[in-house]
Amino acid sequence: MKKIVSFGELLIRLSSPGYQRLQQAKQLNIDFGGAEANVAVSLAQFGDQVSYVTRIPDNDMTVSALRHLNSYGVSTQDVLFGGERMGLYFYENGSNGRASKVVYDRQFSSTATLRRGMINWEKVFEGSDWFHWSGITPAVSEGATDALLEGLEFAQSKGLTISMDFNFRGNLWKWGKTAGEVMPELMQFNHVMSGTHPDVDVLAGDIDDYLFKVEGDKIMTQYPNCKIVVFTSRGVVSASHNTWSGALYDGEKVYRSQKYDITHIVDRVGGGDSFMAALIYGLRNLKNHQETIDFAVAASAIKHTIEGDQNVCSKEEVYHFMKTNGTGKIVR
Amino acid sequence: MKKIVSFGELLIRLSSPGYQRLQQAKQLNIDFGGAEANVAVSLAQFGDQVSYVTRIPDNDMTVSALRHLNSYGVSTQDVLFGGERMGLYFYENGSNGRASKVVYDRQFSSTATLRRGMINWEKVFEGSDWFHWSGITPAVSEGATDALLEGLEFAQSKGLTISMDFNFRGNLWKWGKTAGEVMPELMQFNHVMSGTHPDVDVLAGDIDDYLFKVEGDKIMTQYPNCKIVVFTSRGVVSASHNTWSGALYDGEKVYRSQKYDITHIVDRVGGGDSFMAALIYGLRNLKNHQETIDFAVAASAIKHTIEGDQNVCSKEEVYHFMKTNGTGKIVR
Amino acid sequence: MKKIVSFGELLIRLSSPGYQRLQQAKQLNIDFGGAEANVAVSLAQFGDQVSYVTRIPDNDMTVSALRHLNSYGVSTQDVLFGGERMGLYFYENGSNGRASKVVYDRQFSSTATLRRGMINWEKVFEGSDWFHWSGITPAVSEGATDALLEGLEFAQSKGLTISMDFNFRGNLWKWGKTAGEVMPELMQFNHVMSGTHPDVDVLAGDIDDYLFKVEGDKIMTQYPNCKIVVFTSRGVVSASHNTWSGALYDGEKVYRSQKYDITHIVDRVGGGDSFMAALIYGLRNLKNHQETIDFAVAASAIKHTIEGDQNVCSKEEVYHFMKTNGTGKIVR
Amino acid sequence: MKKIVSFGELLIRLSSPGYQRLQQAKQLNIDFGGAEANVAVSLAQFGDQVSYVTRIPDNDMTVSALRHLNSYGVSTQDVLFGGERMGLYFYENGSNGRASKVVYDRQFSSTATLRRGMINWEKVFEGSDWFHWSGITPAVSEGATDALLEGLEFAQSKGLTISMDFNFRGNLWKWGKTAGEVMPELMQFNHVMSGTHPDVDVLAGDIDDYLFKVEGDKIMTQYPNCKIVVFTSRGVVSASHNTWSGALYDGEKVYRSQKYDITHIVDRVGGGDSFMAALIYGLRNLKNHQETIDFAVAASAIKHTIEGDQNVCSKEEVYHFMKTNGTGKIVR
Amino acid sequence: MKKIVSFGELLIRLSSPGYQRLQQAKQLNIDFGGAEANVAVSLAQFGDQVSYVTRIPDNDMTVSALRHLNSYGVSTQDVLFGGERMGLYFYENGSNGRASKVVYDRQFSSTATLRRGMINWEKVFEGSDWFHWSGITPAVSEGATDALLEGLEFAQSKGLTISMDFNFRGNLWKWGKTAGEVMPELMQFNHVMSGTHPDVDVLAGDIDDYLFKVEGDKIMTQYPNCKIVVFTSRGVVSASHNTWSGALYDGEKVYRSQKYDITHIVDRVGGGDSFMAALIYGLRNLKNHQETIDFAVAASAIKHTIEGDQNVCSKEEVYHFMKTNGTGKIVR
Amino acid sequence: MKKIVSFGELLIRLSSPGYQRLQQAKQLNIDFGGAEANVAVSLAQFGDQVSYVTRIPDNDMTVSALRHLNSYGVSTQDVLFGGERMGLYFYENGSNGRASKVVYDRQFSSTATLRRGMINWEKVFEGSDWFHWSGITPAVSEGATDALLEGLEFAQSKGLTISMDFNFRGNLWKWGKTAGEVMPELMQFNHVMSGTHPDVDVLAGDIDDYLFKVEGDKIMTQYPNCKIVVFTSRGVVSASHNTWSGALYDGEKVYRSQKYDITHIVDRVGGGDSFMAALIYGLRNLKNHQETIDFAVAASAIKHTIEGDQNVCSKEEVYHFMKTNGTGKIVR
Repeated sequence: MKKIVSFGELLIRLSSPGYQRLQQAKQLNIDFGGAEANVAVSLAQFGDQVSYVTRIPDNDMTVSALRHLNSYGVSTQDVLFGGERMGLYFYENGSNGRASKVVYDRQFSSTATLRRGMINWEKVFEGSDWFHWSGITPAVSEGATDALLEGLEFAQSKGLTISMDFNFRGNLWKWGKTAGEVMPELMQFNHVMSGTHPDVDVLAGDIDDYLFKVEGDKIMTQYPNCKIVVFTSRGVVSASHNTWSGALYDGEKVYRSQKYDITHIVDRVGGGDSFMAALIYGLRNLKNHQETIDFAVAASAIKHTIEGDQNVCSKEEVYHFMKTNGTGKIVR
Repeated sequence: MKKIVSFGELLIRLSSPGYQRLQQAKQLNIDFGGAEANVAVSLAQFGDQVSYVTRIPDNDMTVSALRHLNSYGVSTQDVLFGGERMGLYFYENGSNGRASKVVYDRQFSSTATLRRGMINWEKVFEGSDWFHWSGITPAVSEGATDALLEGLEFAQSKGLTISMDFNFRGNLWKWGKTAGEVMPELMQFNHVMSGTHPDVDVLAGDIDDYLFKVEGDKIMTQYPNCKIVVFTSRGVVSASHNTWSGALYDGEKVYRSQKYDITHIVDRVGGGDSFMAALIYGLRNLKNHQETIDFAVAASAIKHTIEGDQNVCSKEEVYHFMKTNGTGKIVR
Repeated sequence: MKKIVSFGELLIRLSSPGYQRLQQAKQLNIDFGGAEANVAVSLAQFGDQVSYVTRIPDNDMTVSALRHLNSYGVSTQDVLFGGERMGLYFYENGSNGRASKVVYDRQFSSTATLRRGMINWEKVFEGSDWFHWSGITPAVSEGATDALLEGLEFAQSKGLTISMDFNFRGNLWKWGKTAGEVMPELMQFNHVMSGTHPDVDVLAGDIDDYLFKVEGDKIMTQYPNCKIVVFTSRGVVSASHNTWSGALYDGEKVYRSQKYDITHIVDRVGGGDSFMAALIYGLRNLKNHQETIDFAVAASAIKHTIEGDQNVCSKEEVYHFMKTNGTGKIVR
Repeated sequence: MKKIVSFGELLIRLSSPGYQRLQQAKQLNIDFGGAEANVAVSLAQFGDQVSYVTRIPDNDMTVSALRHLNSYGVSTQDVLFGGERMGLYFYENGSNGRASKVVYDRQFSSTATLRRGMINWEKVFEGSDWFHWSGITPAVSEGATDALLEGLEFAQSKGLTISMDFNFRGNLWKWGKTAGEVMPELMQFNHVMSGTHPDVDVLAGDIDDYLFKVEGDKIMTQYPNCKIVVFTSRGVVSASHNTWSGALYDGEKVYRSQKYDITHIVDRVGGGDSFMAALIYGLRNLKNHQETIDFAVAASAIKHTIEGDQNVCSKEEVYHFMKTNGTGKIVR
Repeated sequence: MKKIVSFGELLIRLSSPGYQRLQQAKQLNIDFGGAEANVAVSLAQFGDQVSYVTRIPDNDMTVSALRHLNSYGVSTQDVLFGGERMGLYFYENGSNGRASKVVYDRQFSSTATLRRGMINWEKVFEGSDWFHWSGITPAVSEGATDALLEGLEFAQSKGLTISMDFNFRGNLWKWGKTAGEVMPELMQFNHVMSGTHPDVDVLAGDIDDYLFKVEGDKIMTQYPNCKIVVFTSRGVVSASHNTWSGALYDGEKVYRSQKYDITHIVDRVGGGDSFMAALIYGLRNLKNHQETIDFAVAASAIKHTIEGDQNVCSKEEVYHFMKTNGTGKIVR
Repeated sequence: MKKIVSFGELLIRLSSPGYQRLQQAKQLNIDFGGAEANVAVSLAQFGDQVSYVTRIPDNDMTVSALRHLNSYGVSTQDVLFGGERMGLYFYENGSNGRASKVVYDRQFSSTATLRRGMINWEKVFEGSDWFHWSGITPAVSEGATDALLEGLEFAQSKGLTISMDFNFRGNLWKWGKTAGEVMPELMQFNHVMSGTHPDVDVLAGDIDDYLFKVEGDKIMTQYPNCKIVVFTSRGVVSASHNTWSGALYDGEKVYRSQKYDITHIVDRVGGGDSFMAALIYGLRNLKNHQETIDFAVAASAIKHTIEGDQNVCSKEEVYHFMKTNGTGKIVR
């Protein structure tokens, strides 16, 4: 099977241990992530061939970041070196009514200073049939948006399938335009879309299939390339306890997953990314849309039990989880 | 606004990591606490000016303890140096049906060897309008009781508001008199009292407002200076899961907070102290008694998610918690 | 009272910290365990005199293992040195729907290469009145089975009480015979048996006392030496949340324990071993079968809150747990 | 005594534990530093009153940074909030022939975006008689240079003593001008200068007093306000073993310290800053220049044995070090 | 061979990790020690039968302390429970010219409140032929001195060999009498004495055998029971680098060990105790005084490379060290 | 350039932190190594294309091992899955006269149960021009020797350059034949040989070039394919302090490196492997034999400062080390 290209900003994640507040921490755990890198890492573990594209400076920390991706089998041969810094974020794990907290320090990153023409998209897409991006990249800067648009145009011209995770982060959009002004042009390229409407997350959990279909049809009308619309629904009982389910609409029918009760969250960062990866895996490898949404939600339910940005988990483990209905009986 | 003076014994807290038993531990986490120091630290984070008064020897560990307090903005300029040792306690975190455990080693401390005349209360109370103490100090020794009484007399003569947390610890009272013999004289000075009756904790949760008012009136009759009586109610489902609420009686009306379900306790030590601090903050800064009890209970609910003796938490975070009703949705 | 002899394979346990996956771990916690060693350690903490018998090579890691046992007061004077290696296992803690995982590396161990005649059973049983073994030893190798049989014959000839925990692990039986072919001969020696039927775990929780008695009678008919049959019942809500109870049948009556809800599991490995130890303690020291099953289930409920293979817990702590009905109110 | 004002950029320091390479690290130790903050922290420990001035954004990490400074008694009341980010650096400890390594990520910091007029120097210098700065600030940006110049002018007009550590870092000067173009104007304000000439470090160690005096006179001629010129001399045997000494010239005489052999370096970052702090302390508090240079070199020799950016060390400890001639006999 | 009884105060040791200062530490390593416990642990590892006698309260930390001793095979069956607290000390590791530092918190310990008549010396000395004590016990309190004297009288009456390590700690003697007033009476019982004169440590390294013999004869004249006088000589190049040697005088001849250069000290606490243990081992098991002093100095040289209070080291490892002349070639 | 194939046994390395003894450790650091894997990892970091071949079972720990290799860019596509277990070793770091210690647990590994015919050497060597092996593989088992011989024959037939590191470990040769019986046949294939004679290590350091040439000629006469003979010379001052140098003989001339004084060893395991890797790199990429031996010795001197089995170090860092003559001046 041909390779998947995932493009976005790579971040250093620095998190306080256990439930320490950042203000208390004397040591931070290092991880490397970012929405699109997380998708790449998860897909590579499922056995797909994946190339991750980003722009970073060349120093000991970026060497470490690339090694992290390589260790999971993600190809980084098309990563571009340049710019001044790699974005990072500080993270503390919430508990009960105390929310998890992200302190971003990602401005002026090498991805933010990307410009059209910097990435050799022709080389990047060699041997590829799928391109994944997310709504975080256009939020970062105008240059990143231009570079992305260039990639989307090229991907479309080569006939690649294009998937997107909306990933709306209001406080990242600071470069002059709003998501509403920028996203529609980019979204025209999409064949698969996740989380396109902030309110739909909630809707997906509660409204009936009919209303959900209406919302999906609206999206497909606005973006005629789009053939698959998916939503995840997170019910926040507390920072320690969420419910988690998803639904997929293919223009004809709504497919819904089981709703998992995640009562002892270990780390919910990257939950959506792990869903996106498993969805792409399913669309490429599984036999129907029901299996796909089931696999995607199960995989991302597992992510909530894994420390770090990424879903350290094989496809066999996802199947085992599904088979045991998420009861977690000891394996020995 | 004028400064608050908090007086009591400062302790080294040595706790086993995670859920290790003390018997298993090869490393201990260091923290510094004590009921009145915890109140001081929380008030300083809310923006009040606070001076903490205690007596400790002068060595590397007490330097560290003072730095800890200073880091949160608590003034330690009136801390007295002298005596032989700083009290300490060992702590292990319980889980489910295994209770958390405290092993005290606080006898013969520099606070226990305090005597009337040692503390320059005149200097201590300069620029102050509030004095806070707890029932732990008179439990420690006769000398500590005398020093406290001296402080209370001076505070009263200067017109300070006096608040107290009863903090009954039966096994600390070893110096010859019982709490019942000693406390009433000291409590005459109080304007604000918390947890004055061991049974009321339970009552507060379950009895109706009328009976609660009866109990409050009884206290105010016995201690005519007292204008505010508060109770917290902890429902112990297990060491990992408590419920938490509070009520305030001002001689006229009972104000009750929401009842929070704390399903994944991180560290419940200092829960009452964080309540006391937020109560004092509310009485001084918030516009009415309902807001005050709501703020106090929310703040102390947060404390249950924070490692260590103290509520590492700003007032903005308390408001955010209240606004989101303690659901803990991620902040990014 | 005379000493108890426990015989089996000693293992190094290497576990990833917190909820890290083994694939993520850069450090592993070391512990030492094995079903029969766990029983020995727990019994020694309850105050019984215990000797643990196994075969291990002589190196720095086995020195460490023996020190671990000695620290809890278990005698290792009859441990045999020889063979090539000490078995070990890697362990990761599950959470929610992600199961805990054991990766065994115990083949070719010094216990697996045991043979009849190696152990001086006469010396081992001096001053002893009880012999404990488990179904893990015959799974390990033919030689280990022979050595065990030799011990059982000797124990019987000396009039010792013999107890067994079935501990069925399907994937350990690799040496040519099945449990079904090997176990019956060995089980003839037993006076006390736990967990003899894989289905009964489930049954014990749900069937009524009558059906349970029928099952117990069947066992006692097949193994006429057997006077006590016990079962534990684990309800797996998730890897983080189990229910736990047990029942004891003495040929006349079924005695049932309370059912504990363990909502925040710390470490469930060794749960059955801690039950077995407390059962033996009860049968030897407590005044009736109801107290015995209550004590055994309470002790093993506590184990689920303790890190490591063993139940670091005194009998006073078990009683406290029972008295507070497993609510875990703080002890200070 | 009046307070000292130290002005510069505050940094997060993220260092790999022990001798791990950054590329290997999975956890980083957090510290907070920067040349001028390090000077402030050390002076506060010696008992001087110190205010540190910088510009940082307001988030959980900067709260932590300020708490760090406050814990040592440094006043941060005049710290300015604003801008986008706090600079940081990654650090790995070298050993033998493998050099320690700093990876800077301090561009676009809130200090770099400082501009003339932002800092209320009048308020900053209230009650102050000394202003300390270093050559790192003008390297950061043109705006930072302007803000510094404004401060220097104001300090001069108020009659403060001005001290500077040249701290030349070639690779920081990226904003358009060179150190050679910018520094002379700023250095005109100095009364005390350290490390003004890159070659003099070496010279100070090896040349005789006469040649050293010649070099000092040259500096004092060029900068007529300057009354004290100091140099430190580091002999690099390896990353683990340095020699360390210093010399002070007051226009009349050269005063030299003992030369310490630091054979087991723990952390040499901040060595120069700890020297500068002790020098300022000496010039303000000690009775002559010989004592001053002896104190400064001893204090900074101790710094090489302390983890982190700052010299966690009291003046009594410096005196003890000097009295025992740096032999390090155990204190008990 | 008969058992050795070692008597003294048991301490909790809380040390900062690596080279952190106590003032910086957020975690402390736990160890258990004390001069006489360290001797016991080392002797047990060499294969001798050892009983350690002390007085401690009964809590989770003392359970842990006893387990520590038991893990090394030291018998604690005659440890007395009672009193209020277990002494402890905080420790930071020095480096280069920064000395290691001990902060004691051992006042009012259960050993300090010992009194004559508390210890059942008859039972303690059953099956014993050797009694070891040190000069720390009489420094602790008058009661401890009385209890010790009682033990010495009993030991003498039973014909035991008595050894003592002088272990002078000036700042421990606070109960009213000086070492000079108390020690001579106690030392009359000794057959083996180490470090009796503070100046002799130094002398032993530098003076010739004749002068050393003169000093030894003086001691033996004053204490006619004494047959063996030993000294160790520590040359303090820095906190990281010491030289180490020893000498033994038996009334006839001076036997000297090799002088080891310990260039990278890991932990020097307990160096003298490990020497004392190996000396006792040698006097009981080795064939002559030369072998004994060689073994004792080699064993204690190894201690300087071991973390914690005790010499975790077998006699085979001491022999290997001696055979390779302390060059430390890798063993694989 | 074509790829290098390195073949050998992959091991889990479990080491105690810092200078803890294995007997004291409660946590172990995990690393993955083995002589030939270490060579592969170092070569990949220098930029060469490397494939590592071994045989391991398929479980979570081997997944982790392969990820480790992949993170450094080593291809593991020809790793064979099968057998029962992955070898491992426990390691403690020595200090001063206490030697580092390796406890092997590598018997019955999947490499030991290799047999001729299992590895598809044709596929393995596709696109390769170099084959590296070491004397550890034939020590492991007869089957491993057969598989290696098969590989050597195939490599020779394809015209690959063959390099070997003798790596004599006496206590590994347990399968029936000695190194003397087995190695000569295998060594006939070699073009490059390191460390062929246990005594020569020593000789290389001390004898003059003439005698060294004599020894080299002897080797080349016995093994006529051999064109390059290299030796490293380790001078063991202590476990903390070694000297390190090397020499290369090409049949004509002896080339010697500088002799480095490594005074503060961090981790000497893998020192020889890092030398071997850098030698292969030099022979393939550098312009002459002097540069090659200089590069190889410098690279392996750096290894002594790196934690773990492998030389985490780029070629630029080796050049920087050589340029600064191993003085380790800070890089910032």
